[in-house]
Amino acid sequence: MTNKRVYNFSAGPSQLPLEVLETAQKQMLNYENSGMSVMEMSHRSSAYQNIFDQTKADLKELMNIPDNYSILFLQGGATQQFSNIALNFNDKGKADYIVTGNFSKKAAQEAAKFTDVHIAYDGKENNYTHIPGQDELDIRDDIDYVHLCTNNTIYGTEWDYIPDTKGIPLIADMSSNILSRPIDVSQFGVIYAGAQKNMGIAGLAVVIVRNDLLETHKDQIPVLSELDTMAKKDSMYNTPPTYAIYMLGLVLKWIKKQGGLVAMQEYNVKKAKLLQDYLDITDFYDYPAEIGSRSHMNVSFTTGHSDLDALFVKKSIEAGMTNLKGHRLVGGMRASIYNAMPYDGVAYLVEFLKKFEKENKE
Amino acid sequence: MTNKRVYNFSAGPSQLPLEVLETAQKQMLNYENSGMSVMEMSHRSSAYQNIFDQTKADLKELMNIPDNYSILFLQGGATQQFSNIALNFNDKGKADYIVTGNFSKKAAQEAAKFTDVHIAYDGKENNYTHIPGQDELDIRDDIDYVHLCTNNTIYGTEWDYIPDTKGIPLIADMSSNILSRPIDVSQFGVIYAGAQKNMGIAGLAVVIVRNDLLETHKDQIPVLSELDTMAKKDSMYNTPPTYAIYMLGLVLKWIKKQGGLVAMQEYNVKKAKLLQDYLDITDFYDYPAEIGSRSHMNVSFTTGHSDLDALFVKKSIEAGMTNLKGHRLVGGMRASIYNAMPYDGVAYLVEFLKKFEKENKE
Repeated sequence: MTNKRVYNFSAGPSQLPLEVLETAQKQMLNYENSGMSVMEMSHRSSAYQNIFDQTKADLKELMNIPDNYSILFLQGGATQQFSNIALNFNDKGKADYIVTGNFSKKAAQEAAKFTDVHIAYDGKENNYTHIPGQDELDIRDDIDYVHLCTNNTIYGTEWDYIPDTKGIPLIADMSSNILSRPIDVSQFGVIYAGAQKNMGIAGLAVVIVRNDLLETHKDQIPVLSELDTMAKKDSMYNTPPTYAIYMLGLVLKWIKKQGGLVAMQEYNVKKAKLLQDYLDITDFYDYPAEIGSRSHMNVSFTTGHSDLDALFVKKSIEAGMTNLKGHRLVGGMRASIYNAMPYDGVAYLVEFLKKFEKENKE
Repeated sequence: MTNKRVYNFSAGPSQLPLEVLETAQKQMLNYENSGMSVMEMSHRSSAYQNIFDQTKADLKELMNIPDNYSILFLQGGATQQFSNIALNFNDKGKADYIVTGNFSKKAAQEAAKFTDVHIAYDGKENNYTHIPGQDELDIRDDIDYVHLCTNNTIYGTEWDYIPDTKGIPLIADMSSNILSRPIDVSQFGVIYAGAQKNMGIAGLAVVIVRNDLLETHKDQIPVLSELDTMAKKDSMYNTPPTYAIYMLGLVLKWIKKQGGLVAMQEYNVKKAKLLQDYLDITDFYDYPAEIGSRSHMNVSFTTGHSDLDALFVKKSIEAGMTNLKGHRLVGGMRASIYNAMPYDGVAYLVEFLKKFEKENKE
């Protein structure tokens, strides 16, 4: 059955390591002689608590998360955190947003319901192909936080540095590049990510928050949005998404086995370079993301002709690849090559790119 | 491996039908020749949309949900709905809560952040062993809704009738008895339930809402709490908990195969009666829930001696049963016997009750 699996270039939910799925399959009816599936475990049982604690410990170790940060396992994906961020960190009632793509824009729009939002940079003019340099950022003084999105799935751009916010807490949506490379967590006030790209399956969001920031939320917000309450209750104010947390645990074990985040970065750079280099040497494909702003996770490209793009997508499916169609906002094609996409999958895609070009070049 | 499975009496997350787990196991690496796991599917793909639509259609059919209701698949469990209900149905700024247990109390406390809450009945005096009759309810006029919880997991009580609210929308938390028997959905304005008892796994909440009620939310609430937005987007404003919805779909197929909700009710009554009848004929065990108020899903009992209760729990684990320890608020024991608990599991428990009594009766 496994040899019929396709190369899945979905932006999320996305391909998982085969080894992870095989473990989940093996443990489905009876997890380590507990006599039950992880799905059936009371979240208050010691068997489940062990899974939960190990998952947190593995994440802390892999990301080198300092002791003064809390790790929360929440629901509602990154979108729920768009609201939670503005509801919880709202002492001064002002926040600055750096808009480099669709999701950072959505985050800013949601926050504007609850706080005074200033756009510190807007990539709209260059169609979001550019990550701003430090001198392009217009950050106000005396605000609660600065928000950015470290990787933009739709436009295929990624931050390669951490901006200096002069002591103002920096809050980052890392949904699409968390765990893809080492980062210095201490440079951030809050890091959050939906799990369905590099961390596991949809239905789980991970929030990593510096503890001293946890005491500013307004009184009357929904209890599950109270990050201080969730920290105090170790994410178990109510039943957490137990199986999604277990799947994250399996993914983290797999990353550790690959050699951790340094090894993941090497592998991801090698994979991305293979694809990006080819897109750069050929005139047949257009790869609009600026050099220096390019993502190692999402590569958005086009033939420049919508009918040819459609043919590419159709032929790619026939060749055993899925989800290469670009987002409707930009059209064309997009290859999402997260941690779990093997090098062979990218090599296969590049061979397909060459073949398609040869067959369709005028 | 399957023959080592235990009887799991957990209140939630709880035992799933073995057949459901076997299907999930079989489909883990490659769902119906899609070449991928359901976990890996883009929520925008046609393969996933089919699963989603079929799950909705099966729920509509099984519960006989009228056409003027929307079915939403949300995150945050019932607890998130405690907030959502008060945030969305807030035209008059007044709501009445019938408190028959711990979760209806929590629902009322959460709602009081956002609306004027009046307690229409409080079971505290009788230690929540009683479901009030119609004449015990003190419901105000001119309010947004009346809220109740149809089954109380901790105290083991269950409503056996639908109160008359004189045209005021009735909102019900059915987390622990949904799908256990037929109900007349048209009698309710909103029905909601966390999935981890009778519907599947933790991380999914189902909300069934009458469409005409969907237009009263305040403007500035978190976007994922906007039930009208979620209805318009068919629960896909953002990535839904895709795998948990798939698991719900498998559970619904299993229920259909058992004969639907009429058959489930017959089976559940038969199971509960076996256990309840024995608890009633013996003096050794105390079963405090009032006759007429008793739950078919959760049976809370005690020996009246905390050391004997602890011994019971210990011995029950040795005998291959888990999670029979009662909730800390009431102590003693609790057997949660949801849809997926087989008759044989209850029969096995009753035999154990008899044996333990014989061995420990003075």
